[in-house]
Amino acid sequence: MKVYFDNAASTKILPQAAEKMVEVMTEYYANPSASSIMGMEADNILKASAKTLARLINANEGEIYFTSGGTEGDNWAVFGTAKGYNRSGKHIITTVIEHPAVAQPFKQMEDMGYEVTYLPVDEKGYVSAQSVRDAVREDTILVSIILINNEIGTIQNAEEIGKAIKEKNSSTLFHLDAVQAFGKYKIDVKKFKCDMLSASAHKFNGPKGVGFFYMKKGLKVRPVLFGGGQQNGHRPGTENPAGAAAMAVAAEDAYKNYEESTKHVFALKKHLADRILNEISDTFVNGEDIEKASPYVLNMGFKNLRSEVLLHALEEKGVVVSAGSACNSRKKVQSSVLGAIGLGDDDIQGSIRFSFSRFNTIEEADYCVDVLKETVAFLRRFNRKR
Amino acid sequence: MKVYFDNAASTKILPQAAEKMVEVMTEYYANPSASSIMGMEADNILKASAKTLARLINANEGEIYFTSGGTEGDNWAVFGTAKGYNRSGKHIITTVIEHPAVAQPFKQMEDMGYEVTYLPVDEKGYVSAQSVRDAVREDTILVSIILINNEIGTIQNAEEIGKAIKEKNSSTLFHLDAVQAFGKYKIDVKKFKCDMLSASAHKFNGPKGVGFFYMKKGLKVRPVLFGGGQQNGHRPGTENPAGAAAMAVAAEDAYKNYEESTKHVFALKKHLADRILNEISDTFVNGEDIEKASPYVLNMGFKNLRSEVLLHALEEKGVVVSAGSACNSRKKVQSSVLGAIGLGDDDIQGSIRFSFSRFNTIEEADYCVDVLKETVAFLRRFNRKR
Repeated sequence: MKVYFDNAASTKILPQAAEKMVEVMTEYYANPSASSIMGMEADNILKASAKTLARLINANEGEIYFTSGGTEGDNWAVFGTAKGYNRSGKHIITTVIEHPAVAQPFKQMEDMGYEVTYLPVDEKGYVSAQSVRDAVREDTILVSIILINNEIGTIQNAEEIGKAIKEKNSSTLFHLDAVQAFGKYKIDVKKFKCDMLSASAHKFNGPKGVGFFYMKKGLKVRPVLFGGGQQNGHRPGTENPAGAAAMAVAAEDAYKNYEESTKHVFALKKHLADRILNEISDTFVNGEDIEKASPYVLNMGFKNLRSEVLLHALEEKGVVVSAGSACNSRKKVQSSVLGAIGLGDDDIQGSIRFSFSRFNTIEEADYCVDVLKETVAFLRRFNRKR
Repeated sequence: MKVYFDNAASTKILPQAAEKMVEVMTEYYANPSASSIMGMEADNILKASAKTLARLINANEGEIYFTSGGTEGDNWAVFGTAKGYNRSGKHIITTVIEHPAVAQPFKQMEDMGYEVTYLPVDEKGYVSAQSVRDAVREDTILVSIILINNEIGTIQNAEEIGKAIKEKNSSTLFHLDAVQAFGKYKIDVKKFKCDMLSASAHKFNGPKGVGFFYMKKGLKVRPVLFGGGQQNGHRPGTENPAGAAAMAVAAEDAYKNYEESTKHVFALKKHLADRILNEISDTFVNGEDIEKASPYVLNMGFKNLRSEVLLHALEEKGVVVSAGSACNSRKKVQSSVLGAIGLGDDDIQGSIRFSFSRFNTIEEADYCVDVLKETVAFLRRFNRKR
């Protein structure tokens, strides 16, 4: 059996999305900016895709920009806000559990003389709305928060946070890194009072190399790339109608049976976690309780084990999981998220992330536990002998 | 008959490239940065694609970075060099006939206090190596030149220019915007002494949303995006193995029968131009002679006609051409390239660009001329009556 539980790193493309991609690439290959009818047809595909995505987050079609992925959107929010609003202030706020695509741009801004507040999180990974309210000042131009954490699945209370920000300073912009949330969680940019939002298609069974950036109408956020006048002058470069259309297909499908999918994935996660907790000694769940975190992410610790050894042993039996964010895995950098919620080094090193898609099955979870039981027992025995 | 002569704007995907894309998306969907074997397999696809692209420009595999397209590469060259080398100087050089993806970043740098030299071109669109040599100073950190112009197809003498730059100041970096060149012209980064080069897959029958950036080993050019440690820390964001592999397939195919393709496209261009010149009065070729410019681009003027009217009349008969760069077409901005080579406003407004792929046929050229003859005659008659 082959079990892929690393869907937070990337997902398998939805067959209908792949089909759409090929259809558009083959039939609507003109440059969407060309003034020909063929160009306009390609442009119409972009517009229809934007419309679908906008509807799913309660935004307007004209507020959706196509990007190369989550990293570009995250960078755009930080650098674009700084460039557009530096006259209003040089204070920006984020949390200690951001993805590097937000954390690194903040680090750059810090080097450039901006003042950065890094909000702490509690032991479940939450940043409190009160701490956001306290941190926002008159010169705060941006608050950027990861909606669902990529390593532990904690879902921030975006509505409360958005409210806190806007009540304290109505001109402070609010960006949500929704890379792990879009497609797996109901998003309403108006309810969350967010001004910008980043998403990435390959996290919800769309293609890699495509994402979208929601930017509320009328903002002075500047582009990060410069060139042709595409996307109303906000994002240059020949647009990618095939990628946009495939992303829209994947998004539509992800929300089509949203309640059902959520219920299914939650049952799977709960089953997996319960069996591990009951059948494998010295195991624990990291972050928020199973019931309240995102059903798509389960981070668990295994005492007296090193995750990298466990991962490779599991993969030999066909089970693919990860030790945290793929973006850091090659660098052998220890998870800063698990540290931020208070885990000690040993527990961090013994933690692995199971991340799901709605296409995973209970049978896969069972197989995963069976393999885990065997593998953990073997490795722990082996460890003791050393 | 349907004739697509707007290949400089974008090309139709090669069926084998589309197939490769679907294969990789479907079978190798893991995150290439994941430490799993699946991740490594996806990473191997990236490496193999880089190897193919490197070989085609005489570079090393480790010098190829995957981007979202030509615009990102062009921006990277300008902003990355400025950030990495600002201590060496604040003088940068380009030409007056660059694509906006280079011209706009230069404008940004100018606004940020950098000194920019915009080199003129002659009536055929050439920038002389001597003018480059004269312009390069001790504090010049970058020269960026478009290898094949997107509007008139003039091929710069990259070898002479590279030599002039390096002889004058060996530490000045040389960037080639090869978006219209790669796949249609033999490129050798060592012969051209270029340090950076940008290319875009959809210009040579690869997918949109993917490109590559060659950056010579050991440079201090900085990234434009910040995030995870992907691509050796130079370009964050989950890589796109499907796009990279499809781009490599398209590239390999473009160069497989390079001499034959070049000969075929040249014959087609010459046939089209000769028939237009002979059979339609008051027509002329813009820029370099047919024999010396890129065979893939033909820019021609039609006296007493407005190109936008002509374009739409042609498209009604199934012939798609353009009035210049697609990136500008929606903005109704007049071509600055045609102005730079000395054309008057009337001639600019009466000029259209035919751009080819190796899949176009002589029959298509003949049909295009037949339609043109009829359409031009009709429109000119109509114009006279007004």
